Amino acid sequence: MTVGIVGLGLIGGSIGLALRDPGRTVLGYDVSDSNAKVAQSRFCVDRVATLAEVSKSDLVFVAVPPAHVVSMLDQIAEVRGKNTVVTDCASVKADVTVWADQENSSWFVGGHPMAGHEKSGAAFSSAWMFRNASWILTPTHSTDPKALKLVEETIRHIGGVPVRIPPEAHDRQVAVLSHLPHALAAALVVVGVGSSNPQLGGGSWKDLTRVGGVDPALWTQIFMGNRQPLALALAETQEILEKFQTALTLGDERSLRELFEQAKAAKEKTQL
Amino acid sequence: MTVGIVGLGLIGGSIGLALRDPGRTVLGYDVSDSNAKVAQSRFCVDRVATLAEVSKSDLVFVAVPPAHVVSMLDQIAEVRGKNTVVTDCASVKADVTVWADQENSSWFVGGHPMAGHEKSGAAFSSAWMFRNASWILTPTHSTDPKALKLVEETIRHIGGVPVRIPPEAHDRQVAVLSHLPHALAAALVVVGVGSSNPQLGGGSWKDLTRVGGVDPALWTQIFMGNRQPLALALAETQEILEKFQTALTLGDERSLRELFEQAKAAKEKTQL
Repeated sequence: MTVGIVGLGLIGGSIGLALRDPGRTVLGYDVSDSNAKVAQSRFCVDRVATLAEVSKSDLVFVAVPPAHVVSMLDQIAEVRGKNTVVTDCASVKADVTVWADQENSSWFVGGHPMAGHEKSGAAFSSAWMFRNASWILTPTHSTDPKALKLVEETIRHIGGVPVRIPPEAHDRQVAVLSHLPHALAAALVVVGVGSSNPQLGGGSWKDLTRVGGVDPALWTQIFMGNRQPLALALAETQEILEKFQTALTLGDERSLRELFEQAKAAKEKTQL
Repeated sequence: MTVGIVGLGLIGGSIGLALRDPGRTVLGYDVSDSNAKVAQSRFCVDRVATLAEVSKSDLVFVAVPPAHVVSMLDQIAEVRGKNTVVTDCASVKADVTVWADQENSSWFVGGHPMAGHEKSGAAFSSAWMFRNASWILTPTHSTDPKALKLVEETIRHIGGVPVRIPPEAHDRQVAVLSHLPHALAAALVVVGVGSSNPQLGGGSWKDLTRVGGVDPALWTQIFMGNRQPLALALAETQEILEKFQTALTLGDERSLRELFEQAKAAKEKTQL
């Protein structure tokens, strides 16, 4: 089996590392030669190839920045092999779904691995990144079940847990589960550095600011691709923070307690 | 040397575990017999003793819930040994500082280890908890330098990094570095569980909600003890989240980018 990876950054590099095995060939392509070199030097791919060659693999993972996914899919569609299955990794699924509907493509499966790292580039890639991580797939009515099966099997092979979700539901979910945490981390790190000595921070500070300094270009694209669900999630968060603030200002111990009780009950649900 | 620990919960238990060593005796006291039993069964103390006996140790760590620290210090003051040094672990220092000023006590050193865990009780204690953690000390003009030195040496012995800070500055710092992260985690976990399937969450969700379900009684006390600095920190955070929300609503890519650039710059400062 040959697997192609288009976009050899943190995610593409990690998929490659996780998939390289005797009996499987991993081909990689990146518009940037220097990205491709890093990925090759870290053994993320068996070899670097042209987009046309990579697109003739049995399965192609598209792991380019979200704003470039649709144009890359157009390019791949022109040169892909007859039976090539293609999946992407973008954290927003609205526009690729529109694209898949227009193309009525049976060979494309929208995807989003719920894994990553606060640093970018194949230099930080890891074969372990997807172990036990959810990997959302957003098949549509036109998706060939065999294509979906191949993607799911490959994800399981690298330790991921495939989960099928309708594309619109996906975008609401990740607004809350991924994009909102990144907004909160960004806000916290700015407030913290402005008014304190962050060297003193303990575990909660470290955990809550881990993703506070992510790549601005990438995350601007991600947020722009999921504007409405994220704005809604932010509004809900603001409401709760407002309640904390009011309770603190008034010295309203009972309301504070209720807020913490509510949070504790919610947290317990996440551990079921 | 004999060390006394008053309050055998997560923090007191962990201090005990970290300090038990041949040549040093660790005595423990807790108002709750069942807490004391858990601590003893986990070898957090050499033995459980009365408050009067514990208070005659060379050094006493008071690790009771924040709302009970001052009344406990009053009780210890009545029975303490002539040369006993006392330090506390409360995450807010305003009221213990007022107490220390009134008593003009040379033998008391306010303290706050910047470490912890999302679960409470000696059952979760760990001898490693304080390794490389900042341990803030808030000596005042009346503090005996010898008392301060003993506390600092003992903290270093269990791997902590003592940092001297004026009490008011401490409360502003922890509002941002510890209390604010707990408010954000609480808000995030409530929003997330209300509108998504948290099982799908990746690393950012897990990290940002780790402390989302902390003990409501304890954290209500902590927040009540640091109302004004925390309300201010929350207001600053809300301002930034407001900017994210406005930029998302307007599709203002440039402002989003600026917010992420600002966060990245702040994050880089935390890593200096």
